[in-house]
Amino acid sequence: MEAEMERLLQNIRPLDHAAMDAAEKYQARLAKPPGSLGKLEDISIRLAGITGKLHNAVGRSRILVFCADNGIVEEGVSCAPQTVTAAQAVNMTKGLTGMSAMARYFGCELVVADVGIATPYRCAEVRNCNIAKGTKNLAKEPAMTRAETIKAVLTGAGLASEAARDRVDVIGIGEMGIGNTTTSSAVLAALTGLPAEAVTGRGGGVTDEGFKKKKEVIKNALKRHEPDAGDPIDVLSKVGGLDLAAMCGAYLGAAAGRLPVVADGFISIVAALCAARLCHDAAGYFFPSHGSYEIGYVAAAKELGFDPWLNLGMRLGEGSGCPLAFEIISAACAVMNGMATFEAASINDGYLDEIRKKDSFCV
Amino acid sequence: MEAEMERLLQNIRPLDHAAMDAAEKYQARLAKPPGSLGKLEDISIRLAGITGKLHNAVGRSRILVFCADNGIVEEGVSCAPQTVTAAQAVNMTKGLTGMSAMARYFGCELVVADVGIATPYRCAEVRNCNIAKGTKNLAKEPAMTRAETIKAVLTGAGLASEAARDRVDVIGIGEMGIGNTTTSSAVLAALTGLPAEAVTGRGGGVTDEGFKKKKEVIKNALKRHEPDAGDPIDVLSKVGGLDLAAMCGAYLGAAAGRLPVVADGFISIVAALCAARLCHDAAGYFFPSHGSYEIGYVAAAKELGFDPWLNLGMRLGEGSGCPLAFEIISAACAVMNGMATFEAASINDGYLDEIRKKDSFCV
Repeated sequence: MEAEMERLLQNIRPLDHAAMDAAEKYQARLAKPPGSLGKLEDISIRLAGITGKLHNAVGRSRILVFCADNGIVEEGVSCAPQTVTAAQAVNMTKGLTGMSAMARYFGCELVVADVGIATPYRCAEVRNCNIAKGTKNLAKEPAMTRAETIKAVLTGAGLASEAARDRVDVIGIGEMGIGNTTTSSAVLAALTGLPAEAVTGRGGGVTDEGFKKKKEVIKNALKRHEPDAGDPIDVLSKVGGLDLAAMCGAYLGAAAGRLPVVADGFISIVAALCAARLCHDAAGYFFPSHGSYEIGYVAAAKELGFDPWLNLGMRLGEGSGCPLAFEIISAACAVMNGMATFEAASINDGYLDEIRKKDSFCV
Repeated sequence: MEAEMERLLQNIRPLDHAAMDAAEKYQARLAKPPGSLGKLEDISIRLAGITGKLHNAVGRSRILVFCADNGIVEEGVSCAPQTVTAAQAVNMTKGLTGMSAMARYFGCELVVADVGIATPYRCAEVRNCNIAKGTKNLAKEPAMTRAETIKAVLTGAGLASEAARDRVDVIGIGEMGIGNTTTSSAVLAALTGLPAEAVTGRGGGVTDEGFKKKKEVIKNALKRHEPDAGDPIDVLSKVGGLDLAAMCGAYLGAAAGRLPVVADGFISIVAALCAARLCHDAAGYFFPSHGSYEIGYVAAAKELGFDPWLNLGMRLGEGSGCPLAFEIISAACAVMNGMATFEAASINDGYLDEIRKKDSFCV
């Protein structure tokens, strides 16, 4: 399996810089002050680097939601019962959760994958990729074996490859897993060397006592397991979770399949950071969505150079930032595909000759 | 006409607070940690206050773009020629500009209104509401008469009323007018008492010399005309423009027609502030879109209590933030309309009984 992992990483190629140069030059020819569409311009240029094409579109979009339980919940780091993971996984397939209600409205496809749900449930629409019925309690032992971790990574990569084969144009990475803000903070601290306090927030509303406990658990786990910051698989296996590992794999699979991939909030971005640490070139395929108030989000965003697009105060997880991020990517494509170049505009009505004389214009 | 203006203002009613209370209570019943969808929750609650209905949708959206020229361009405050106003107005009707390319992609209707274009053009798709062939040079005399200003306000209000009659669900307010960052800064300084330096940016790329000139022009105009901060019509007529006045009217018309209305960048938000100063209750109908880097945007946003939704570094104007803002409003509606309540979710699969026991839960 280590060999399969190696192949996955080797399949990731850098962005197509010739296509990006062409896109940048084309942007400069569009009839607007240079740079005035801000990140929409950057997005269209990066899409060109991903697909190799100047003109792109978001015909099909898909959100991959990785659901798994975390043994660490035994320590009281979360105020929600573990059964919520299974419950919400099922509800997602029905469009009843926040993310899935939006996905349904915007016509995003949805794959809800069980990579480690602990509670029994019955729902044929949840994709059964279960690797274990939850992880071990990382306060006492490593959350997973290295083999389980790699299996989860490859599972996530497989679902991203499937999206590429299905000719999906963009994917987003979401999750559901009670306890996974704790594992995400632990992984982030291990990867960055930041102290637990700098990467640990309250999650969805833990009590003062629970919050203190959460930070202690993370601090102690890092001390006990000494995860190797240079080996993200080691970090994920010792203090991560099946959801994080599978999400990390999905980012890598997207990059290998030359598919743009959108991160959601805190947990999703930590998985993106794991992927970027495993393969630097992969990060060129990653896009942010909304900014999370979770303290660790900001730290992880800094590592990835993410400046999030949406300022909506969301903290639901699930991949709830992805549907709107897909619309933003669509807007970037619409500009690239629909706007007139200075030349074309002047052919149409002759007026833009005036603009053509200027390097830039202002109103 | 002053009487007609008075009627417009009297037609504006406060938000329906009973409907907002009902929406807030309904939001609390949705199966998610309270507040976890952030501003999407706030939007759905305010929409209820506007329409009186718990469940809303964006079936039809329309962007009103007000195009006008400004006599102040004689002073060299802009590096673009005046003919660009007419050129881009025409190009908008063809979907060739940044905003209109996005509007076409997202299916937003578009009304491009000439309220004061100076240059001749031929284009039947531009709505002829021309009040004057541009304003006077406010460095030398008041930009408009009070009568012209009110006529422009009523023209804008009329187009918003038309949208309400057409059963459009939301409108956005854009503009095209070379020189209108100068007039917007002057109006903002007059309304807030802030010094010219605190509200004047470079616009789309004016030179160092032009930027200095721009600030001087504003400072001198305020000194010369002494606009009355308590009388926004006086401010608009002396140092504003036909576009700003018509946009201000469109905000008021939207509020009078109980229509949610989305502001774009700097110029659009200054017009929104004029409207809010004319009628405090109107502001309840206003929504932000993207945050502008223009220094005056931040000042105006603070006055209006706007915390913009999109962080895309856009500075194109035209109403280019509106199409994506409509998608965000749609997302808020999708959540309100699609998510399960704790009760409904538990009927569906029984699992959410666990969540129901908690006031909040975290992952």
